[in-house]
Amino acid sequence: VPLTVAVAGASGYAAAELFRLLSVHPDVTEVRAYSRRPEAVPLPGHVQVRPYGDLFAEGADVVFLSLPADAARAAAKELVASGRVVIDLSGGHRLPEARYRAVYGDAESEGAGQAVYGLTEWFRDELKGQRLVANPGCYATAMALLLLPLAAEGLIPDFAVADGISGHSGAGRAEKGRHLLAEASEDVSPYRLTGHPHAAEVEEVVGARAGKAFRLHFTPHLAPLSRGLVTTIHLPLDLAPERLAALYQERYHGSPFVQVLPPGQDPRTRHVLGTNVVELAVAVDRERGFAVLTAALDNLGKGAAGQAIQNMNVLLGLPEERGLLLPTFAV
Amino acid sequence: VPLTVAVAGASGYAAAELFRLLSVHPDVTEVRAYSRRPEAVPLPGHVQVRPYGDLFAEGADVVFLSLPADAARAAAKELVASGRVVIDLSGGHRLPEARYRAVYGDAESEGAGQAVYGLTEWFRDELKGQRLVANPGCYATAMALLLLPLAAEGLIPDFAVADGISGHSGAGRAEKGRHLLAEASEDVSPYRLTGHPHAAEVEEVVGARAGKAFRLHFTPHLAPLSRGLVTTIHLPLDLAPERLAALYQERYHGSPFVQVLPPGQDPRTRHVLGTNVVELAVAVDRERGFAVLTAALDNLGKGAAGQAIQNMNVLLGLPEERGLLLPTFAV
Amino acid sequence: VPLTVAVAGASGYAAAELFRLLSVHPDVTEVRAYSRRPEAVPLPGHVQVRPYGDLFAEGADVVFLSLPADAARAAAKELVASGRVVIDLSGGHRLPEARYRAVYGDAESEGAGQAVYGLTEWFRDELKGQRLVANPGCYATAMALLLLPLAAEGLIPDFAVADGISGHSGAGRAEKGRHLLAEASEDVSPYRLTGHPHAAEVEEVVGARAGKAFRLHFTPHLAPLSRGLVTTIHLPLDLAPERLAALYQERYHGSPFVQVLPPGQDPRTRHVLGTNVVELAVAVDRERGFAVLTAALDNLGKGAAGQAIQNMNVLLGLPEERGLLLPTFAV
Amino acid sequence: VPLTVAVAGASGYAAAELFRLLSVHPDVTEVRAYSRRPEAVPLPGHVQVRPYGDLFAEGADVVFLSLPADAARAAAKELVASGRVVIDLSGGHRLPEARYRAVYGDAESEGAGQAVYGLTEWFRDELKGQRLVANPGCYATAMALLLLPLAAEGLIPDFAVADGISGHSGAGRAEKGRHLLAEASEDVSPYRLTGHPHAAEVEEVVGARAGKAFRLHFTPHLAPLSRGLVTTIHLPLDLAPERLAALYQERYHGSPFVQVLPPGQDPRTRHVLGTNVVELAVAVDRERGFAVLTAALDNLGKGAAGQAIQNMNVLLGLPEERGLLLPTFAV
Repeated sequence: VPLTVAVAGASGYAAAELFRLLSVHPDVTEVRAYSRRPEAVPLPGHVQVRPYGDLFAEGADVVFLSLPADAARAAAKELVASGRVVIDLSGGHRLPEARYRAVYGDAESEGAGQAVYGLTEWFRDELKGQRLVANPGCYATAMALLLLPLAAEGLIPDFAVADGISGHSGAGRAEKGRHLLAEASEDVSPYRLTGHPHAAEVEEVVGARAGKAFRLHFTPHLAPLSRGLVTTIHLPLDLAPERLAALYQERYHGSPFVQVLPPGQDPRTRHVLGTNVVELAVAVDRERGFAVLTAALDNLGKGAAGQAIQNMNVLLGLPEERGLLLPTFAV
Repeated sequence: VPLTVAVAGASGYAAAELFRLLSVHPDVTEVRAYSRRPEAVPLPGHVQVRPYGDLFAEGADVVFLSLPADAARAAAKELVASGRVVIDLSGGHRLPEARYRAVYGDAESEGAGQAVYGLTEWFRDELKGQRLVANPGCYATAMALLLLPLAAEGLIPDFAVADGISGHSGAGRAEKGRHLLAEASEDVSPYRLTGHPHAAEVEEVVGARAGKAFRLHFTPHLAPLSRGLVTTIHLPLDLAPERLAALYQERYHGSPFVQVLPPGQDPRTRHVLGTNVVELAVAVDRERGFAVLTAALDNLGKGAAGQAIQNMNVLLGLPEERGLLLPTFAV
Repeated sequence: VPLTVAVAGASGYAAAELFRLLSVHPDVTEVRAYSRRPEAVPLPGHVQVRPYGDLFAEGADVVFLSLPADAARAAAKELVASGRVVIDLSGGHRLPEARYRAVYGDAESEGAGQAVYGLTEWFRDELKGQRLVANPGCYATAMALLLLPLAAEGLIPDFAVADGISGHSGAGRAEKGRHLLAEASEDVSPYRLTGHPHAAEVEEVVGARAGKAFRLHFTPHLAPLSRGLVTTIHLPLDLAPERLAALYQERYHGSPFVQVLPPGQDPRTRHVLGTNVVELAVAVDRERGFAVLTAALDNLGKGAAGQAIQNMNVLLGLPEERGLLLPTFAV
Repeated sequence: VPLTVAVAGASGYAAAELFRLLSVHPDVTEVRAYSRRPEAVPLPGHVQVRPYGDLFAEGADVVFLSLPADAARAAAKELVASGRVVIDLSGGHRLPEARYRAVYGDAESEGAGQAVYGLTEWFRDELKGQRLVANPGCYATAMALLLLPLAAEGLIPDFAVADGISGHSGAGRAEKGRHLLAEASEDVSPYRLTGHPHAAEVEEVVGARAGKAFRLHFTPHLAPLSRGLVTTIHLPLDLAPERLAALYQERYHGSPFVQVLPPGQDPRTRHVLGTNVVELAVAVDRERGFAVLTAALDNLGKGAAGQAIQNMNVLLGLPEERGLLLPTFAV
């Protein structure tokens, strides 16, 4: 199937990664970029930028939205109505409406909860034939992949605690001082002690699977790297380490992008840089009755553009890994 | 008081930082370095390296031990017996004997618990006139400074969860591949999911102050920077944010090296680079009933050499901040 | 043509990059690794490490040598004699014997000058059907690609001056302190003011093409990145900037991995990270009568493993870019 | 002498470094900041920001100008007329008027050449009692310190070639994409192949000392670090290495901030981070008849704020090193 694909909102890092990955996807024959400020878009030579308004008139088999949440919901409504397949990389469709308003403090929330949640490994069946996908947040992807196996087995406690560490590309092409290398070098810092919206995303998806309320205490941190994130989750759980490891091995058997590491190996962002892979590891501190779950992924890969293409593949009935089996660059 | 100071085990990063800081201490007139491999010691020009064995024969008012734990306990025993003041930067004296054996799996533990714990802000009175100080671990310093105010007020719960992120100098002049820049650039990774000995150190000091058992679930991570660490602690606590902040403000009022940040500011390793300062911030997620405590310090400064000199100052009756009020280099 | 490929000396960064790239080469069906210390080789899961001695008994269509220069010459002699195609990534075959001895101070130099010099863009015809290729040095690749167009046109002066800046992977999995991130962060430094062997390599190949003696004054520097190098060359030349640019555009037209940038764009290592691409730019300071030539490449890509595979492709009659058209990872 | 000091233009990195260094200067009792946008200035707590206009009405013994070149010349004129001592960190006073117009393409150049050039080690006598100092550019400081000993001895050739490598703080608190850590990590790049104004600065000062025309071919590069620069100069010179080294040793004997390294040691930015020190090294390639001169300094220290304070000290008759003997932070 030769596919024509459009990216709306072409100036950000996730869009740049979409162009990079789509340029080697064997079924994608044309990639179009749409932007409100075409002149501001730093794109690879093979992509032409068109005015944003033309997005709705011109045809495209799949449209990736890399827009602010409100604009993404408005665009999705129009595009889906005209028969397009839409994958929204913003936070605009990830939460039910009431939760969306509570988390974002946003009065306008129409349609927020009307997409299928595109955590591919857990929603493959729901994705097939869908029209609108809410691509998960980068941290949410890592945390949900770590917690859902426990939720599915009835092993999830009432709460968990998580910290996250990510590079600066997560902040976008921002102009804030702390993201300049001159101020970011040799710096590590938490940046939002409570209330990160990805925690709400995980509470919703894990709570739904577990059939009970679930609280997640999450604090993200910035570290001096460009791409990649690690999240480490702690929760009360007293289980034999071998049983816990087996549970993840079994659950992700057959998922080409989830690598459950053997005991003693730690997830590293370097291993997954530029790929759609997630590395996971789990451990139990039996003395204290707590488990540790940890994962590394590329926030622009599995955390954004990679998973968006993975979702496109599943939704269109293509092999899930099509166009995504790039070797990591890491030495 | 003109002081002659000795550093035993001169080849590591903490020793290098001791020499840097002692070179501008107004009361220190001579600094001597002792090493088993004098030729391997990369020191600033003003320091002469002597054979390790001479340490015990030659006089020095204060001896800093930057040695492996076992060697440090043996040296401390001999030096204290001959009337020297000893500040041990290793883990050799930080835990009671039984706990020491359990944590380090070490058969030999004689004298492990016989020093005063040199977390200066909490043990000033105990330090005065002491002969032997156990300088706390870098992560333990940050975590204990965050938890002790709650312990002292009877507000500490039975457990807390913490993550840590540090630079590569914490690993020493190691030769392992992952610490080479060629492999550490663009990499973040957890490195010991459970059982880090600094957690035991914090459990001991916090439990003792609280008068009850206390469990700490702690996982450290490596990030691509040279110096500095952040630790973020989560614990069940439902308190008005203002009350919590006030508690820290009051407790550390008059402590020149602890800066409790106003709401909305986050601790950053860059702010404390090359200094003896700790930046702290606290927040409460009242909806979920959890508090977040977070701190940044320089693992070679307040986390090692800086605090060692701070302890020397207190122990000898000098002003606590003598020689330590260096401006941070950060832009 | 299904190819069986061997890599001798599997523990270094260039070998790791060979495995990464060969894993996606469509004609390579098997990759074997040979090492004197198989247990020390940190390889991706799909590669099995065999004892070094078996290299000579077992069959392989192409053998890449990632060995010390002396061992590489000895191995090449034996392998070529038994009919294998050998691509030597060491410096062992890059210089004529007398020059080799002068530069490396090595008494033993037998066979040093008996390979074709594998700067693919300039030696395509010589490579076809060859048995032994000397893969150029990383800096030499960049500098020769910049200087040969002038040499071929009779425009090269008697000397040029060059500086180079590279990341730490060029030093190998070394154990020296300055390559640890803890000491390399926030550090830039020259490291060999005169006499770098890559200068001799360039003098030879440029002098031969120009038909006259040519001197290159070259100093390399280390910067805090993992992969990539830039070299900037200055030489007396008074030519219209447009003519100079056109000369490079024409010369590298049809070379898929050499990108001559338009005026105002600068080569960046980030653009070529993980690829076999070289970015070039040229400028003229007409007021002072000097030209500036500058290039960026990945020292493990076009500077080592990438060019080695490019050479294999040409030598075996495959399309030059086979298996090497990976998108860069850079955002 | 208790000094009141003013900094005009307080929002940049050089200003921040001035505040850092002035805060530990024993003779400076008050530091005032003046800015057109006081609310935008991220300053340490001890400094109060005042409206720019008040600078001219209020008294201050010394005024540091950290302004655009045109504004700096206008402010200097008014301040000197009212009896203040002015140290201009911009490029506004570094070149003679005609050269200034040629280099900056600026029509307005009144007063450009009317200051003493504040390369302290070479203009101590001229500085004493002066009213207006042109603080040299960061690269110009390093290059002039390397070239002037040759110029003074009549050994300077007609031209030299130089490359420079610096961190991102040199670009200021810019908002350009390439200075964001997300795009600057793993990146090295030249950024202005010809025509950098610091080359003109060096040509002027070296040519004047040598009494002949001197051309400098200079290209700067960006590397992923915050602070620090290295410059490496190549020039035709056939001199015994020992004689060349001795020449620098003698010339800078008694200059507390210039460290001529012994043979085999290379200047490193890490060694001078946060200090006013310059590390120099020289070598000769006798076979090819070229010398290499190389230096490392902190672009915000000796390259800006440090040298500005050094100039203030000399100008006011204070010991040259007053307030500037900070230990480097580097491990």
